[in-house]
Amino acid sequence: RCFHFCKLPGRVMGIRLLRFTSVVIIVLLLVAGALTALLPTIKDDKLPNSRREPKTQSQSALDSFTLIMQTYNRTDLLLKLLNHYQAIPHLHKVIVVWNNIGEKTPEEMWNSLGPHPVPVVFKVQTVNRMRNRLQNFPDLETKAVLMMDDDTLVSAHDLAFAFSVWQQFPEHIVGFVPRKHISTPSGVYSYGSFELQNPGFGNGDQYSMVLIGAAFFHSRYLEDFQQQPEAVYALIDETQNCDDIAMNFLVAKHTGKPSGVFVKPVDIRNLEKDTNSGYSGMWHRAEHLLQRSYCVNKLVNIYDGMPLKYSNIMISQFGFPNYANHKNKM
Amino acid sequence: RCFHFCKLPGRVMGIRLLRFTSVVIIVLLLVAGALTALLPTIKDDKLPNSRREPKTQSQSALDSFTLIMQTYNRTDLLLKLLNHYQAIPHLHKVIVVWNNIGEKTPEEMWNSLGPHPVPVVFKVQTVNRMRNRLQNFPDLETKAVLMMDDDTLVSAHDLAFAFSVWQQFPEHIVGFVPRKHISTPSGVYSYGSFELQNPGFGNGDQYSMVLIGAAFFHSRYLEDFQQQPEAVYALIDETQNCDDIAMNFLVAKHTGKPSGVFVKPVDIRNLEKDTNSGYSGMWHRAEHLLQRSYCVNKLVNIYDGMPLKYSNIMISQFGFPNYANHKNKM
Repeated sequence: RCFHFCKLPGRVMGIRLLRFTSVVIIVLLLVAGALTALLPTIKDDKLPNSRREPKTQSQSALDSFTLIMQTYNRTDLLLKLLNHYQAIPHLHKVIVVWNNIGEKTPEEMWNSLGPHPVPVVFKVQTVNRMRNRLQNFPDLETKAVLMMDDDTLVSAHDLAFAFSVWQQFPEHIVGFVPRKHISTPSGVYSYGSFELQNPGFGNGDQYSMVLIGAAFFHSRYLEDFQQQPEAVYALIDETQNCDDIAMNFLVAKHTGKPSGVFVKPVDIRNLEKDTNSGYSGMWHRAEHLLQRSYCVNKLVNIYDGMPLKYSNIMISQFGFPNYANHKNKM
Repeated sequence: RCFHFCKLPGRVMGIRLLRFTSVVIIVLLLVAGALTALLPTIKDDKLPNSRREPKTQSQSALDSFTLIMQTYNRTDLLLKLLNHYQAIPHLHKVIVVWNNIGEKTPEEMWNSLGPHPVPVVFKVQTVNRMRNRLQNFPDLETKAVLMMDDDTLVSAHDLAFAFSVWQQFPEHIVGFVPRKHISTPSGVYSYGSFELQNPGFGNGDQYSMVLIGAAFFHSRYLEDFQQQPEAVYALIDETQNCDDIAMNFLVAKHTGKPSGVFVKPVDIRNLEKDTNSGYSGMWHRAEHLLQRSYCVNKLVNIYDGMPLKYSNIMISQFGFPNYANHKNKM
């Protein structure tokens, strides 16, 4: 019954080998069976291209974003806004950049009013600088950053939609506030919004910047910002302004495309008037807009060229808030 | 006066060499001067990312598009629309797919009313088929195709903008008419528009198709369409419908992304009622929508899966027609 196998020396060894081989085969079959059971179910039509279900326990780095909010002299607004923003879908963590030098953060009070949906870290600053919010915070774990001014309220719907848009345009600043530069025959640039003349490419207006005070962008741009010429930091510190213009220059230079993608907000509000501090924000200074034109020209010098590019793409959410907001006469 | 140079053998040769060298240097300086004069002026800020100035004499293949318009029994509308479309910016050529079998084309009359801004070719068909417009016409010289139904009027502004959007999304069908499919617990799909339930991904609606009767797409998709399973052609011929659904399946399968990008039209009109022919278009048939649901399910069988993906991106033109159509309370 043994055939040539038995003829080999070590017939005992042959049987053991046979048993061993059988055991190995059985184990492999069991492992394969277990793996098959673990295969994900393919549901192509149920997975929209850009949306992934949030993991309730921990948000993966690609599916969520970190809110970075710098604050100065408006702690009442900050806390009101934190109550709103802490509950936004896909939020991973909040980083509060505390520019109130020498003043205690509200961390104790915050903790006493827990639990909170996500962690909030208060980063105490040593100098009150506009560009403090553009540090490469080690607390950042997500690819996406949502940067908000401490007086701006954007609805959860707008943020959820804009985040999904950012996921489709991750190299752009995806946000709610578009601005533009225009060039003049003298070669001097001017900064502004829709009140300025259209840049003159076809009909309609164009924008060349999306402000970072209400926008999503990739966290790598914070790393990149640390590598800029000293003159950029000096400019931002000198004006306490223009960090957002500098970021748009950085992004445009990096991509060779328009830096921003404008998402038209349904519900965006400025809560400035609601503060008890009496402090009303840098943009009320008389020289604010002139400074920004000044910054555009300085940055063109520093970067030896104008990298900003124009876009006229305005994105809205299909069927929201009105279920047929795309209806037409056809 | 000659120093060591004169001491070298061939003093005459030394002087000739000196002269020769001087002449060479002078010539080089002149050439360098001429080249400097020819250097292009760098005007980065004047070139928007996606728009290129049309060449008035001949449109380059990337800067222009070909209009393909199929026509049946509505020659009066065709001619009215041709007068409009022939003057659209960036139009390279018009291809009229003549489905009026046995009937003379209006080519003679067309020529007698020349000159025309662009060439118009009448492609006489032998059989009246819906999918005739999806042939890979040798007359096609551009990368972009604009396909229009012969009863649809879209404004030049909308078309110019949508073309610029297509240039930024060349692998998608960029157009004005969004539709969707929904799946049901039974696994059977249904076709429709906003009146159907939202697919249920977050709030708002989604679309999974952009109809080709008013859209830009890449001409390579016409090549690809020739390579489809026979069953697809049989389905389209059987229903005299669904060629556009088939194209969306094709594109979605090819890209793995949503097939279309919806551009919200400012001015789109259906001229059906204006025709003298009394012919009112296929979509008035009682079974039209049911057929399209039928087609969706048949195509899922043919392609062994549902490749369509959802999108909720709606694109509008920034600052047009209202110069501040993006203004908000901020």
